[in-house]
This record gives sequence, structure tokens and C-alpha cells, in this order.
Amino acid sequence: MLKGKILVAQGGGPTAVINHSMAGVVIESRKIASVDRVYGAYHGVRGIINEDFFDLTRETTHNLEMVGDTPCSGLGSTRDKPDEKYCGEIFKVLRAHAIETFFYIGGNDSSDTLRILSEQAKAADYPLVCVHVPKTIDNDLMVNDHVPGFPSAARFVALAFAGANLDNRALPGVYVAIVMGRHAGFLTAASALGRKYEDDGPHLIYVPERVFSLDDFVKDVREVYNKYGRCIVAASEGIHDESGQPIITKLAKQVERDAHGNIQLSGSGALADLLTDYIKDHTNITRVRGDTFGYLQRSFLGCVSDVDQREAREVGEKAVQYAHFGDSAGNHTGSVTIHRVGTYAVEYQLSPLADIAGKTRVMPDEFLHENNHDVTPAFVDYLQPLLGSGMPATARLRLNRVAKILKAG
Amino acid sequence: MLKGKILVAQGGGPTAVINHSMAGVVIESRKIASVDRVYGAYHGVRGIINEDFFDLTRETTHNLEMVGDTPCSGLGSTRDKPDEKYCGEIFKVLRAHAIETFFYIGGNDSSDTLRILSEQAKAADYPLVCVHVPKTIDNDLMVNDHVPGFPSAARFVALAFAGANLDNRALPGVYVAIVMGRHAGFLTAASALGRKYEDDGPHLIYVPERVFSLDDFVKDVREVYNKYGRCIVAASEGIHDESGQPIITKLAKQVERDAHGNIQLSGSGALADLLTDYIKDHTNITRVRGDTFGYLQRSFLGCVSDVDQREAREVGEKAVQYAHFGDSAGNHTGSVTIHRVGTYAVEYQLSPLADIAGKTRVMPDEFLHENNHDVTPAFVDYLQPLLGSGMPATARLRLNRVAKILKAG
Repeated sequence: MLKGKILVAQGGGPTAVINHSMAGVVIESRKIASVDRVYGAYHGVRGIINEDFFDLTRETTHNLEMVGDTPCSGLGSTRDKPDEKYCGEIFKVLRAHAIETFFYIGGNDSSDTLRILSEQAKAADYPLVCVHVPKTIDNDLMVNDHVPGFPSAARFVALAFAGANLDNRALPGVYVAIVMGRHAGFLTAASALGRKYEDDGPHLIYVPERVFSLDDFVKDVREVYNKYGRCIVAASEGIHDESGQPIITKLAKQVERDAHGNIQLSGSGALADLLTDYIKDHTNITRVRGDTFGYLQRSFLGCVSDVDQREAREVGEKAVQYAHFGDSAGNHTGSVTIHRVGTYAVEYQLSPLADIAGKTRVMPDEFLHENNHDVTPAFVDYLQPLLGSGMPATARLRLNRVAKILKAG
Repeated sequence: MLKGKILVAQGGGPTAVINHSMAGVVIESRKIASVDRVYGAYHGVRGIINEDFFDLTRETTHNLEMVGDTPCSGLGSTRDKPDEKYCGEIFKVLRAHAIETFFYIGGNDSSDTLRILSEQAKAADYPLVCVHVPKTIDNDLMVNDHVPGFPSAARFVALAFAGANLDNRALPGVYVAIVMGRHAGFLTAASALGRKYEDDGPHLIYVPERVFSLDDFVKDVREVYNKYGRCIVAASEGIHDESGQPIITKLAKQVERDAHGNIQLSGSGALADLLTDYIKDHTNITRVRGDTFGYLQRSFLGCVSDVDQREAREVGEKAVQYAHFGDSAGNHTGSVTIHRVGTYAVEYQLSPLADIAGKTRVMPDEFLHENNHDVTPAFVDYLQPLLGSGMPATARLRLNRVAKILKAG
């Protein structure tokens, strides 16, 4: 049963719908009479350590709805990945404030934090319920059919490529755009949903699930360019060679590493520039342009899937239901997971934290074309219903050609 | 009077609404009984040279409306800037096909092409009516209050910064985004319309109308970062030092030049990377990220101002009216220009081609803050009505802080 003080926090990279999950947790838990207070931690687990709490029982429902419609973690976020010691510090604060339920909205790292915390609570015989509320634009959480945040980011990527394709059709050349995704290519693959006509780009889609070869890249681009007089490429920031070495480190002189020793992939246009330079150096194509979608793909205001919004809200509500009523097996702690039913609906389950924690899901083979640079119709069928309603369409003039006079014959 | 064969073409960079101007020209001119055929040139003036014409009298109104709603030149575009000789070739083709009216949708280069062409026609005593239909995302055409294409691109930039601001608030650091604009800063300045709260970014806006100093840049960023713990920068791709040298050439080892000898600014993430590296090297701020909005700002599907759409359509219709009925002074040839009335409406005029041709309008001083890194309220008032209806709003949680227990006192 949900009672006393409960806490909600948001971790990791922002998404377009992450605040709907927060609003779902807050609004639903405030309806439960045994709940005294709903706290929000400012900037995720770091906010807990610093005892930076907001009292969300003093926030209006109207404003929670408005914040729900606003992209990016309204409670702030953090890149901290707590270990046992860090979790011990969190646990101390939860105890001091008599917080007995913790909802953490985040990806597989956030799930891992809850796994450690719930074990520490058990060992200390402290009655802590931990519910992981899923979010990530990478769509890389195990067990889930898909994850809130991904559909809206996928919508952005599809619409960005649909526009870039039209731009490139008006002024032909080679266009390379880099999409977020270190290990999972779902978001890059979403670029395929921007296509309508047979010759529409992206013509080449490279994801981290497949080995990237610079030789094949040049060959692929040349082939498409010779066929259509232009070529659009979608590539994940995490593309790598057969040894697993990221392409960015093969081509770049300097690379930046984050606090965890990972190579910094986002927040720089380096990979797009390196790939366009490589094409310029290895072909005689002159107009070669590169873009990196960067932070826009997870934060752009006004590009959101209504399906994603609703599901983000539902995982927040389901988290409260599991914490309060438990699932059918009587579990209260766990990760809310999304499961697809028919075409198209979803069911939710409470899955063990350990099934999601620290694990990464990548694209299954059935979604990737055997040519190594495209997706399959199965992936299009998978993603289509997630993009939401009101997807703008494109149209072309029909080619009613006029006979030449001066150059006739 | 509009009669016989008429021609429409699109030149220069695509915009989100350029096809509404084309649809306006085609649909309105087809209503005139004395018009035999409406041709569209495929890829601008180059399409004329190649006699690549489509017969748009065989296109349905329904499809023209659908193409109107589709971003990027549906007739294709070109970067060719015709000189006297090139215009002579165009003139030959127009004559051969007995085309007596030419509507060219484009920026100041397209206007210049029409200026040369109409002089050549006059000299040859050929009855050619030339009407320039304005478009550009740069908003840099003389005489006009603003130019179709700019409002939708401005909407994209404002929404991109509004989102980037929320992202940066969730995960603080320095964020630099590069916006298109070689000489005119209007589009970069549009980033200011993404702000709502006092501490919202962009905190620093750098445009080509002002001298950019790397020393001041570091000082400005440090000041904002010390105040808010984060800093968002909007910079035009064309920022330059006091000698006029582009910053990209000061910092980059290699630069690419286009066919006209101009330094290639778009289609690369170099400037953002150079500016973020400069901040990393000259401050102790660790999280510094850069994005380049690239082609998305002029082509993204589904980000359009309805005001812009309507006006783009109207300039197409007005062009046909001027060509057919003439303006009040009896002129048929010229450039359709937009003039603001009250708050907010527009009037159209037919202005002499020479007043627009080859000239560049930049931001007036009244739009630029004297601190050299912001816009004035006058600019916000100028741009606000152009962004169109349905601009998404953002909301924040209210800061109802909870008293600390462990760290109390």
C-alpha cells in the first residue's frame, strides 16, 4: 500500500514526454488517501544526495498537465550512475525523510540504481518500494516492446529526413545526417519512416548493430548517386568497424571521453564532417553536406507523438497502481514494461528490476535488411503506429513533360 | 495582360512555404482565359537552359495544394547565378517557346536574373513580363518588411532553442547552436522568441551585423555561466571579426569554397565544434556541447507558420495580378514586396527589380541590443506575429522546496 511520503525523480537524457510520466505519478499518487506527501528530487539521484526536494503536493494539477506537455525533465536530470556506496547515501536520505516509495523515471541505469537500492533496503529491513518508470529515446530497454520517449524522437527523425530528402531533391548532392544511438540503431532506423516515393531518401541507413566499413560506405554512396543523382545517408553516432572501434575514433584526431570513460559522441558535428570529407576525398562528387541532429531530436518543442504522450502518462499511472495495489503476483517493486497487443494496443506488466537493469536491447535481425544498409518492412510495421496521429504528408508535382524545341531530337 | 505561355520557376535555397507561391502562380494564372499554357522549369534557370519544362496546366488543383503544403522547391532549384551571357541563353529558350511571362520565385539573385532578362527583352523588343516572387529564409531582401520562408524558419529556430533551453536546464552546461545566415542575422535573432522565463536561453545571441570577438565571447559565456550555472549561445554561421574575416576561417585549418568563391558555411558542424573547443580551452567548464541546425531549419516537415503559408500564397497570387492587370502605375514587371500594416496585416506592392536585385538587407540597429549579444524588444514585437498560430508553450514546476534534514542549518 502506498503511504506516507513518496518520491519521484527523473534520470538520464531528457525526452519529449518524460514529464507526462512524472505528472502521472504525482497526480495518481495524490489521489491515495494514505499518501502524506509527494516529493520530487531536483536533478535525479544527485538531488536526493543533496536533499533537494520539491513538495509536489503543493503543485496544481493544471500546472502538472502543462509541464507534462513540456519536453525535457521538469525535475532536472543527472548523468550520475550510482554504485553501492552512492546508493548507500541515497538510502540514508530516504530513511531520514521517512520516504517509503521511490519512483525513478529513467533508462537502464536508473533501473540499476533501484535494483541496488531495493537490495540495500531489504538487507536493512526497511520497507522501501522501488518502481522504475521507463523512458529513453534509444528504445534500448530489455523486456519492453518499445519505451516512452522513443516514439516522439522517432517522429522527429522521420520528419527531419522527409524534409532533408525534399531539400536534397531540390538541390541534389550527398547528404549525411548523424542520429543519436551508441549501441541501438532504432532511432536511426526511424529515418526510413520519412520515405514515401521509391527514390526517396534515406537511401542508406547505418546502425551500430552492423559492422560499418568505410570501403562499403563509399561503394554504397557511389551506387546510389549514380542511380538517382543524389544520396541521403542516415548513420548512428555509434557506428563502428569490425573490431568494435567507433568510426569517429578512426577518423578523428582527438576524441573526448565522458566521466565514465565512454567516447563523447553527441554535442559535436565531428562524425558527419568526417564522413562527408571521406566521400569528398574518395569520389568526385562535389556537393556533399552533413548535419548532426544533436539535441533537437530529444527536445524540439512541438514534435511529439500523441501515442507516446499517452503511454508515458500511463506508465506513470501504472507505477502508482503497482506500488499501491501490487501486480497479480503481489509484487510492488519492479519496472513497468510495455507489451504490444494486436495492431495496435499495449498492455503493461511489472517486471523484475534485474531483467532491465544495466542491460541493453538492440535491434533484432528481423528489423535489419541483409544488404546491411536498410531496414525491413517488419521494422516499418513496428514503428508506424508509434509515430502518432497527424504525421504531415509530402506531395510531388506530376511529371507532365513539355517537348523540347531547341534541343529537340 | 497575361496571355499565351507563361513560365514559373524556383531558385536558391528551399523554404517551408515556397511551393505555396508556386501554387498561387499556377492556380491563379490558369483562371485567366487568355493563358494557353503554364510551364514550370525544372531546377530553376538551369531547367530553362535545358528546356526541362513541365506542363502545369495538366496538374490538378488538389495536387498543387498538396505540393503547396510540402516544404522545399517542388520544381527543383539551382544555385546558378546567371550573368548577361547566361541570361541571353535563357532569353533564346523563352523566345523559342513563345513564353511572354516569367515568374521567378527566389531571393535577390533571382531578382537580378529577372532584371537582366527584362533589359535584354526590352533591347530585343520582345514583350516579356518578368515578376519576381520573393522567398528566402534569410529575410534579407530590400524594400520588404519580411520575406516568405523566413517566418517558418524563424518558428523552427525559436522552437529548437526553446527545447534546447529545457534540455540544458535538465542537464546544465554550455550549449552553442549555429544558425544559418551569412550576412543577415534575422534567423539567429529568432532564437530570442524561444524564451519565456527570465533565465531562459539563448543567453547570448551573435549575428553578422556586429563584430564577433573571441575574447568577448569567452567573457560573456563565463559571466552567464557564473550567474545561471549554464549558458546557451545562438550564433550565425556568418559571424566575423572586425576585419570582416569569418570566425570559421580564423579557427579552422581548412575551409571549403563554393562555385562563387564564397566560403562554404552550411553543411558542416565545424563552426559549432570550433566555438565549443574554444570555450573548453579557455574556461574550466567541462560540459560544453554544440549543434548546427543545418538543413532542418529550412526543410523540417511539419514546422510551418500559417501566417507565412498564407503570405507565400498571396505573393504568388499578387504576382499574377500584377502581370495581368498591372499595378496602379501600370507596371507589370517588378518584384512583389511585402509591407506591414498595423499589428498585424500586410499590403503588397510591385517594386522595381533594381531595388531588390543583388542587394542585401541586414538587421536594423533598433533590433540589436547595445550589449552586442542580444536583440531588443522591438525585434520581438516585429517577429511575434509572423510565427503563426499554435506556438507550443512551455511550463515549469513551481519551486516549493522541502526543508533539509541531514544537511539542515
